[in-house]
Amino acid sequence: MGNCCERAGNFFGPQNNTYIRVSLPAVCFVWQIAMVILFGVFIRYDEESDEKGWHEFKRSHNITSNIENDFYFRYPSFQDVHVMIFVGFGFLMTFLKRYSFGGVGFNFLIAAFGLQWALLMQGWFHSLDPVTGKITIGIESLINADFCCAGSLIAYGALLGKVSPVQLMIVTLFGVTLFAVEEYIILDLLHCRDAGGSMVIHTFGGYYGLAISWVLYRPNLNLSKRLNGSVYHSDLFAMIGSLFLWMFWPSFNSAITNHGAGQHRTVINTYLSLAACVLTTFAISSMGQKKGKLDMVHIQNASLAAGVAMGTSAEFMITPYGSIIVGFCCGIISTFGYLYVTPFLEKRLKLQDTCGIHNLHAVPGMLGGFVGAIVAAAATEEVYGKEGLVETFGLSGKFENRSMSTQGAYQAAGTCVAIAFGLVGGVCVGFILRFPLWGDPADDFCFDDEAYWELPEDEETIPPVLEYNNHMINKHQDTHESQFSLEES
Amino acid sequence: MGNCCERAGNFFGPQNNTYIRVSLPAVCFVWQIAMVILFGVFIRYDEESDEKGWHEFKRSHNITSNIENDFYFRYPSFQDVHVMIFVGFGFLMTFLKRYSFGGVGFNFLIAAFGLQWALLMQGWFHSLDPVTGKITIGIESLINADFCCAGSLIAYGALLGKVSPVQLMIVTLFGVTLFAVEEYIILDLLHCRDAGGSMVIHTFGGYYGLAISWVLYRPNLNLSKRLNGSVYHSDLFAMIGSLFLWMFWPSFNSAITNHGAGQHRTVINTYLSLAACVLTTFAISSMGQKKGKLDMVHIQNASLAAGVAMGTSAEFMITPYGSIIVGFCCGIISTFGYLYVTPFLEKRLKLQDTCGIHNLHAVPGMLGGFVGAIVAAAATEEVYGKEGLVETFGLSGKFENRSMSTQGAYQAAGTCVAIAFGLVGGVCVGFILRFPLWGDPADDFCFDDEAYWELPEDEETIPPVLEYNNHMINKHQDTHESQFSLEES
Amino acid sequence: MGNCCERAGNFFGPQNNTYIRVSLPAVCFVWQIAMVILFGVFIRYDEESDEKGWHEFKRSHNITSNIENDFYFRYPSFQDVHVMIFVGFGFLMTFLKRYSFGGVGFNFLIAAFGLQWALLMQGWFHSLDPVTGKITIGIESLINADFCCAGSLIAYGALLGKVSPVQLMIVTLFGVTLFAVEEYIILDLLHCRDAGGSMVIHTFGGYYGLAISWVLYRPNLNLSKRLNGSVYHSDLFAMIGSLFLWMFWPSFNSAITNHGAGQHRTVINTYLSLAACVLTTFAISSMGQKKGKLDMVHIQNASLAAGVAMGTSAEFMITPYGSIIVGFCCGIISTFGYLYVTPFLEKRLKLQDTCGIHNLHAVPGMLGGFVGAIVAAAATEEVYGKEGLVETFGLSGKFENRSMSTQGAYQAAGTCVAIAFGLVGGVCVGFILRFPLWGDPADDFCFDDEAYWELPEDEETIPPVLEYNNHMINKHQDTHESQFSLEES
Repeated sequence: MGNCCERAGNFFGPQNNTYIRVSLPAVCFVWQIAMVILFGVFIRYDEESDEKGWHEFKRSHNITSNIENDFYFRYPSFQDVHVMIFVGFGFLMTFLKRYSFGGVGFNFLIAAFGLQWALLMQGWFHSLDPVTGKITIGIESLINADFCCAGSLIAYGALLGKVSPVQLMIVTLFGVTLFAVEEYIILDLLHCRDAGGSMVIHTFGGYYGLAISWVLYRPNLNLSKRLNGSVYHSDLFAMIGSLFLWMFWPSFNSAITNHGAGQHRTVINTYLSLAACVLTTFAISSMGQKKGKLDMVHIQNASLAAGVAMGTSAEFMITPYGSIIVGFCCGIISTFGYLYVTPFLEKRLKLQDTCGIHNLHAVPGMLGGFVGAIVAAAATEEVYGKEGLVETFGLSGKFENRSMSTQGAYQAAGTCVAIAFGLVGGVCVGFILRFPLWGDPADDFCFDDEAYWELPEDEETIPPVLEYNNHMINKHQDTHESQFSLEES
Repeated sequence: MGNCCERAGNFFGPQNNTYIRVSLPAVCFVWQIAMVILFGVFIRYDEESDEKGWHEFKRSHNITSNIENDFYFRYPSFQDVHVMIFVGFGFLMTFLKRYSFGGVGFNFLIAAFGLQWALLMQGWFHSLDPVTGKITIGIESLINADFCCAGSLIAYGALLGKVSPVQLMIVTLFGVTLFAVEEYIILDLLHCRDAGGSMVIHTFGGYYGLAISWVLYRPNLNLSKRLNGSVYHSDLFAMIGSLFLWMFWPSFNSAITNHGAGQHRTVINTYLSLAACVLTTFAISSMGQKKGKLDMVHIQNASLAAGVAMGTSAEFMITPYGSIIVGFCCGIISTFGYLYVTPFLEKRLKLQDTCGIHNLHAVPGMLGGFVGAIVAAAATEEVYGKEGLVETFGLSGKFENRSMSTQGAYQAAGTCVAIAFGLVGGVCVGFILRFPLWGDPADDFCFDDEAYWELPEDEETIPPVLEYNNHMINKHQDTHESQFSLEES
Repeated sequence: MGNCCERAGNFFGPQNNTYIRVSLPAVCFVWQIAMVILFGVFIRYDEESDEKGWHEFKRSHNITSNIENDFYFRYPSFQDVHVMIFVGFGFLMTFLKRYSFGGVGFNFLIAAFGLQWALLMQGWFHSLDPVTGKITIGIESLINADFCCAGSLIAYGALLGKVSPVQLMIVTLFGVTLFAVEEYIILDLLHCRDAGGSMVIHTFGGYYGLAISWVLYRPNLNLSKRLNGSVYHSDLFAMIGSLFLWMFWPSFNSAITNHGAGQHRTVINTYLSLAACVLTTFAISSMGQKKGKLDMVHIQNASLAAGVAMGTSAEFMITPYGSIIVGFCCGIISTFGYLYVTPFLEKRLKLQDTCGIHNLHAVPGMLGGFVGAIVAAAATEEVYGKEGLVETFGLSGKFENRSMSTQGAYQAAGTCVAIAFGLVGGVCVGFILRFPLWGDPADDFCFDDEAYWELPEDEETIPPVLEYNNHMINKHQDTHESQFSLEES
């Protein structure tokens, strides 16, 4: 069977497209060497991770206990975020019957590259010391780097199965770069709050991926249709990813919020919103099928939409029932998206979105941005307290006199910036990816790990112990499959 | 194949039973809307998660550092508990060959509903402010809500594959309600200690599920026998759930124990007990089969019994070797249960217990309750110190003068209350579930995801690449399965 | 099919070898009872987990807050390490198509035993109170016990599929014992630093396993060749293990480093090194195959080598780019190992290494030991600060005057001690395992769960619903497989 396949492969040219023996190692080596050099020039430990620096920091800040190191405030959340990036996103993308290796494997590759590049890009924009010319990093930088990768991983969701790993490296290189710029505009210039990244991560990542996918439209993708679906066990693998995303989303949204009540409240809000979202997802999924049966695609994806939509407002005083209302709506909107919008986009707008990131990231993210704007605009000193208001919205320094309605307006503007960056950036990157030298598969060879992975033999071909051990049967050495091919030839 | 199946389905009436297109969405929407309203009326942030409240709390309690927020004491444990509820329980129930979607999916649904309802129910009983009429929630409330769900998820273990999602929502609605009441009686009125819930969670949940299953006895369940078992990979998925439960059980038992030495000690005790349990589980499993082969069912389940049994006493000074002795016994008792008691219950008592919760939760939980009673009765000021004794057993206020032997007696009484609530509540709920309108499957359609899920095509029917790409073979477009059905027709 | 198999089994004698119904329970019971007695005699809570002790400790150390309990510094890392030991190592070893139960199951058994024995062994060497004769344990002891198990689990990697569970218990008994001794020599006598265990865990564990495997060489192992490989979904299960190891390695290396900047920096270094390693692993994996396809074995294993290699030096001020350089090299070396060294070892040195621990643990561990020596030798007061240098390298008491170059030399010597212990210990244990009474499988029965596990029926034999429910087809009650055997007979 394995041999048959390879022979077959030689018959049609396009498969040669997927030859990446030169380009992938070249890209990996060049970029990793660049990382070594740039890290050598720019990156240093910050004062809480530097041995000497921490001793001095404790002295100068009158800190008596090591537990005050930011590490202990953020490390548990960081590890949860880390799990979301690698196992969450990775396994969520294993749902295709024959692209699970590519789903989890390429996710691994681009996240590992992306986080290094993100430390540099975000460092240049946010924490470059003007005196020493160095970027200092600590645990919060690692969380931000993971966040920054998430943007590109979301984009991968739209492209899953249709691009080569080399293309994905390019998507990530530009994705992280664009991310750092839009993040700088939104968080620093517009001074929005977006701890969980509804705008900067999900809206941007979603539209970035959709725009790329739109440029890379494949008119004959239905030639690969037979592989564009799940099997029973691949859906269970995807459920692992989905559940880890769902469970750890409170950590995602709270990872870089303010110490104390800030992180505490963010967790509560996200937790409640996600729970409500699950119920409406199940409800709509059942209503959407004529016999009322549930669809795993909805459960795996739409139940996460509330986490996306709470990214901005979870740290605000949105109230517990406010959180539940957001979750309630997101489950409905996202599931409807999977039922009706994705098929519509594919047919009418020629937009092929493998994982449905439109419904899971783009729309809920945008929604989250606007919810955040409303909640920010509605904030009062009565509810937050004077110092709480200043701390929650960072209204100090030159933003001291910004009114809450102004803050709301800026939040809304930030969402639009994220959309614009995603769309324009995505179209540009999409055109770069159309150069015919990146090793992407032909239209009839998509969603197939065969293109980039040495695959083990099929499960069905485990020969029965019987045959091998007893040598009783000599004429049936071949398995079902090979019998099959005999008939065929 | 898929088509064949559907046609077949139309032949026999009972399948129509499983039509849930109206009932499931209705229940989800009604209950979720009720949650929105009730949360709006009752639920507020507590002083450690409220922005203004935390600033005031810090001032009034002379707290200088945010790290003293309860969040940092409990959040890592909370996330571990969260993983146990959704991935642990969820994947443990994927072991059936064709009910993995139902196992992990319905677990997800009922936990997401249950935790919202639990916040309300537990809030009304434990933290309703008599002045404002509000319930304030923080991280400890979320942990307790997850715990409360666990009771209903345990009950689901006995019902796995035999009930509809609508029935499960009812099981959870009443399960959470009963839980809150018995918890109030045991922890508040009897003033028992039960941080890890041997009594309130496991004993109650176990007997609740068993009583329901007993009322719902299906005499012709053997018609579904072919699907009541595992396959190789479904056992591995279940092992994921089992290991996450096993690893995080120290967090489960310590999540709400006292800060400091309390949490620390609980972890050590649970960790040791679980380790000992694994060895005796392997030993009995091997002895129970005539060739000495091990059974995955035992490894997946019985090795967890020690965590259940340590739920009450892990926070006490049970000593490390005491913990090991408890684990030692639990592995033996639980594995014996799987080998001999479950088959006996099914034959003689007409009690069908899909996951064997009798051996994993009911009996070890009851045992844990009594072990806790003994250890509490044996507590002395010499071992705990004066303030330690007061803190560990909460002997302040009106319980100031309770002697340790009295405390032990109350602990034992608490276990009996949990059993009684489980049995009586379960029988009542069972009768409610027998109304013929909840969409449960017929006896010959149990343990089958086909009833409630749109299933992907079978793994075996992934067509070979060969056929599609080369179009060399025109006559063999059909796969094995379809060949099969051709022969049949 | 199942029946056929059993009949077949009776035909050839060697299968009887794997009868463990007496030996496995005997070993489990004897050792677990020994644990009960030894824990009763020796193990007590330490002052931070003892109820009375903690109250006194707080008073005597003037501690006002429970958050200063070591528990809150280490528990999140401990749980990550725990996940690595049970899910990480366990699932990494599920990659074989028919030895997944054995991979994850026996890993579970030996880790559960090993950690108990480790608490005793490490206690006797490191924390035996000379006055009371007791060992006191706390959260750091649990982490160390998990670490200690890791040595034996690494050794299991080389033996996977070729030994019986009874043999594994012996490997663990001696492995833990040897570990405690070499750890005492390296950390206490030579006073090396090795928080993440490049030397004491990985170098020792790697060579220990390789030496055992060398002694147990099976000349006719190719009789089991058909099962010595993966299938599509078993590779995905292994990827779960691999990713949890990769994600949590920063916790592994930082779990017992110094509070504050020490843990913080260790995490940063390990995180960066691992990320770099992924890129070079992908690059070399692609270059190593003539069509440039990637190999899952490399991705699953070689991408972890950086974590191993940073075990010693991650807590030092190796600088971020230094970490990346280490990761860069490890990815290359380890992947080369899988491509060329493992096949060479098997052919020329008669060394059968199922999981390739030579490339993942032995070599990167040794490398990490020497990198640590260099970084230690290069440490200056300028970089660490005076107190930082003392704290990081523990240069107090009788080591007060040790120069950094001397420290470097001792670190290098420590690596050699670990290699020596691994090799000599492994050869000795290997000979013990050659006694013909441990129930190991015959050469043609390796890599097969059939030997020690009651296996569920094959996935392919799930009978179609059609047949059972409608009873339309009476003549096709048998599945493919049984049809097959009919033809055969």
